[in-house]
Amino acid sequence: MNIRVDWRASVSLTGTICKYLALALFVPLAVAVVYQRDILVFVVTIVITVTIGLLLEQVDPDPELRPREAMLLVALSWFAVAILGAIPYLLATVGTDSSLAHPVNALFESMSGFTTTGATVMDEISTDRYSHALLLWRQMTQWLGGMGIIVLMIAILPKLAVNGAQLIQIESPGPEFQRLTPRIAETARILWAVYFGFTLALAALLYGLNLAGLAPNMTAYNALAHSFTTLPTGGFSPESNSIAAFSGAVQWVLIPFMVVAGTNFALFWYLLRGEPRRFLENTEFRAYAGVIVVFTGVVGGMLYSGAAPALGELGGTTEGSGESALRHGLFQIVSLLNSTGFATSDFAAWDSTAQFMLLTAMFVGGSAGSTGGGIKIIRWLVIWKVARRELVTAAHPEAVKPIRLGGYVIDEDVTRGVLGFTLLYLLVFVAATVFIVLDSARVGTSLTVLEAISASIATIGNIGPGFGTLGPFGSYLEFPTTSKLVMIFLMWIGRLEIIPVLVLFTGAFWKR
Amino acid sequence: MNIRVDWRASVSLTGTICKYLALALFVPLAVAVVYQRDILVFVVTIVITVTIGLLLEQVDPDPELRPREAMLLVALSWFAVAILGAIPYLLATVGTDSSLAHPVNALFESMSGFTTTGATVMDEISTDRYSHALLLWRQMTQWLGGMGIIVLMIAILPKLAVNGAQLIQIESPGPEFQRLTPRIAETARILWAVYFGFTLALAALLYGLNLAGLAPNMTAYNALAHSFTTLPTGGFSPESNSIAAFSGAVQWVLIPFMVVAGTNFALFWYLLRGEPRRFLENTEFRAYAGVIVVFTGVVGGMLYSGAAPALGELGGTTEGSGESALRHGLFQIVSLLNSTGFATSDFAAWDSTAQFMLLTAMFVGGSAGSTGGGIKIIRWLVIWKVARRELVTAAHPEAVKPIRLGGYVIDEDVTRGVLGFTLLYLLVFVAATVFIVLDSARVGTSLTVLEAISASIATIGNIGPGFGTLGPFGSYLEFPTTSKLVMIFLMWIGRLEIIPVLVLFTGAFWKR
Ligand SMILES: [K+]
Ligand SMILES: [K+]
Repeated sequence: MNIRVDWRASVSLTGTICKYLALALFVPLAVAVVYQRDILVFVVTIVITVTIGLLLEQVDPDPELRPREAMLLVALSWFAVAILGAIPYLLATVGTDSSLAHPVNALFESMSGFTTTGATVMDEISTDRYSHALLLWRQMTQWLGGMGIIVLMIAILPKLAVNGAQLIQIESPGPEFQRLTPRIAETARILWAVYFGFTLALAALLYGLNLAGLAPNMTAYNALAHSFTTLPTGGFSPESNSIAAFSGAVQWVLIPFMVVAGTNFALFWYLLRGEPRRFLENTEFRAYAGVIVVFTGVVGGMLYSGAAPALGELGGTTEGSGESALRHGLFQIVSLLNSTGFATSDFAAWDSTAQFMLLTAMFVGGSAGSTGGGIKIIRWLVIWKVARRELVTAAHPEAVKPIRLGGYVIDEDVTRGVLGFTLLYLLVFVAATVFIVLDSARVGTSLTVLEAISASIATIGNIGPGFGTLGPFGSYLEFPTTSKLVMIFLMWIGRLEIIPVLVLFTGAFWKR
Repeated sequence: MNIRVDWRASVSLTGTICKYLALALFVPLAVAVVYQRDILVFVVTIVITVTIGLLLEQVDPDPELRPREAMLLVALSWFAVAILGAIPYLLATVGTDSSLAHPVNALFESMSGFTTTGATVMDEISTDRYSHALLLWRQMTQWLGGMGIIVLMIAILPKLAVNGAQLIQIESPGPEFQRLTPRIAETARILWAVYFGFTLALAALLYGLNLAGLAPNMTAYNALAHSFTTLPTGGFSPESNSIAAFSGAVQWVLIPFMVVAGTNFALFWYLLRGEPRRFLENTEFRAYAGVIVVFTGVVGGMLYSGAAPALGELGGTTEGSGESALRHGLFQIVSLLNSTGFATSDFAAWDSTAQFMLLTAMFVGGSAGSTGGGIKIIRWLVIWKVARRELVTAAHPEAVKPIRLGGYVIDEDVTRGVLGFTLLYLLVFVAATVFIVLDSARVGTSLTVLEAISASIATIGNIGPGFGTLGPFGSYLEFPTTSKLVMIFLMWIGRLEIIPVLVLFTGAFWKR
């Protein structure tokens, strides 16, 4: 095989990204110092990360990125970051009976973090068993992955800004990337600033609820930890009962921030610049809001009439209570629709009709340019318009009209790309589901169809929890190692929207 | 609204088709005479059918078909035929407690017949409760619908042959219709002759097994009845235990004929003309065969190792028995893959892994130009190639290559049509599943996710049986009437591949 891709350049820049990842590790290190636990874990991880980064950089002292090298860099750096992010889990649990002491589990947890999936293989989530620092690192991986490792690096590294637009396009969710300002590094900084601002605001609000006496267990630590995983649609929580551990006030505050997380962040920039109409008239945002309202109406109505009979303590009583039914319905729909995966109630114990509605919501996804995963609203809009056009064309073959969205004409190449992507996504989803089902049968456990489907969509869609044993208060621990490896792959390709990763496995990428 | 569609022409020709449908009713009438039961039922039905046909014809004495009128004719005539086909059910059960005495049930059974779905709402299937003539009519509706009412009419009616190619294209399954000879009426006659030939051959073989002592209950009546529903991938049986009622020899004989039913019938014409290479080198046929082999391998292996623990009498014992595991696995895969829906075993009682594999097979469908329903092999091939091209394009944006299939270049319009159709199909499937789930919840019954998904795909895919209560030996009787009406709609649009029906519900079809 005649390799024509300058992989050395991609590896070298992956090294640079790893090196700068070490900066982020100082946050959990500080927490480790405060709580006097796992200090050495993070010191060693920082040393390893910087060393590996520097070594990889030596592979090519003067890297130059062409299109394919850029694609390889994005795929590679996400994988490298996930591997390095797993080191603290391994170091903190070495020699113990913790599930994280197994390398595949540690990698699963790390990939689940950076890709903002939020699926867990931890045997127990508590600050008794794991340090505050380690659990905060787990939260922080989601925050780093949410707006994008590459976007972050472009914001701070002039070296990467040269090919910035291309790199962001490869990493960013949604069919098209919107440039906010002519300079790409500036666009990256704006996106991260908006993201940072919302995170701070949420942390302040959550801690404010505590000070106001409305959320006794929302400590400063918890406020920070949950802000770190709300804006990236991450869903990890250092509480084993997720958001069910907190008061209704906390749940109400989180809802608008989850809605924000699933919205195109560029729209907030327009809002800041005093162009609210561009926000409110945005077709995708309006569709997103409409879908939330419709789904919440249906699921809220079900909860009101008793769809959650087995809730007990977790999730409270919704039957006959308007506030409770609306809160849990809205929270769960927003959370699963945009791929956050937070839970206020054990929805895996809801009745099968309500579960089915949640499963359907999982296939929607967030907006383009948001931190949400999945297929995404904009693609569904394009598909809807293409389907309608197919019907009109059947009646009037002579009148083939272009697809319009929010006043703009969508190029036929983009349309074809959207259809191709969606079908590729569904094909990978089905193939993965089949694999997971057969793999579980191989080791002698049998999954229900709902568990199997949800395991697959929850990982490739970067959602996190599913149904049955992988419900919001359950875990992925019991899956065979082979299935976990496939799921690690699914989370990785899901976050990068499949193509930049899958293309590496074609001969055509490396040759010619 | 300014209607520009000459609906009178479509209604008039629908009348002509209804009139000729009466000819087919003489077959059950003859059986009624032999068994001296339900004679009046079929006499009256013939009178009603001819009368309605003649009346409708008066709407336009000189109908002329343009493209939209042709589409309306196809959709309308399939619906009219289903309504007329329900009359014998109603007349034979009037005043009894039979489930078929309810008009919606009778229409469901008739639509399920003509569309070759094979889903049933009969309370009991036995010649004690219903006459041989009525049960044979049920079988015969599938045979008439299989190769296509329109194709049949074009073969016999010179009036329709004028627009024949267009009409066949609208009715026939698959993205493209293959003309076998320059004259379209001749093509229609060839297709029906091949279909007729296979039906006769199967009936003779089945009855031969009986004469040879290998199938004691395969009477002449049963041989004819099952030939009527095998070639159209129909799946109705006058035996309540479907094919599990018959010996292994019968099951082995049916398998190749089911494979034939899912194959493009044009290929057999090439075979007859001495061009076997065109058959064997056909890309779609090879993919079809490959999918059967792979699925059978997996499911057969599962059955061999005990996936069907609860079979008991129906389906025999497969664990540890190579012949039995292969026979049931192959039979069930072929039957569900190409949408026949026959069962040799209660697959709704198989373990969840095996059930999942069968559910997956249901989404495949038959070949283009076969009588099989579903999305169809050829579309999956196009989707697979488009997905691969998306990856190559990601690496080499400058090299956009056309899609090739079996040496031919597929036009981009066709490609876009295939993607659009498949996504429209999946959208309708999901919307229908949501409706069925919510509708069942409304009346207080709850469906499992597997039951709900299978109810939807089994009707829109014209498969018939699903899982749970709608398993191969169950029925659709317990669904609410609203769900049944939706399913009638699903069977109708599934048989005509959605667009010719759905387009009637758009304003654009009627205006301009
Ligand atoms: K998530
Ligand atoms: K069928």
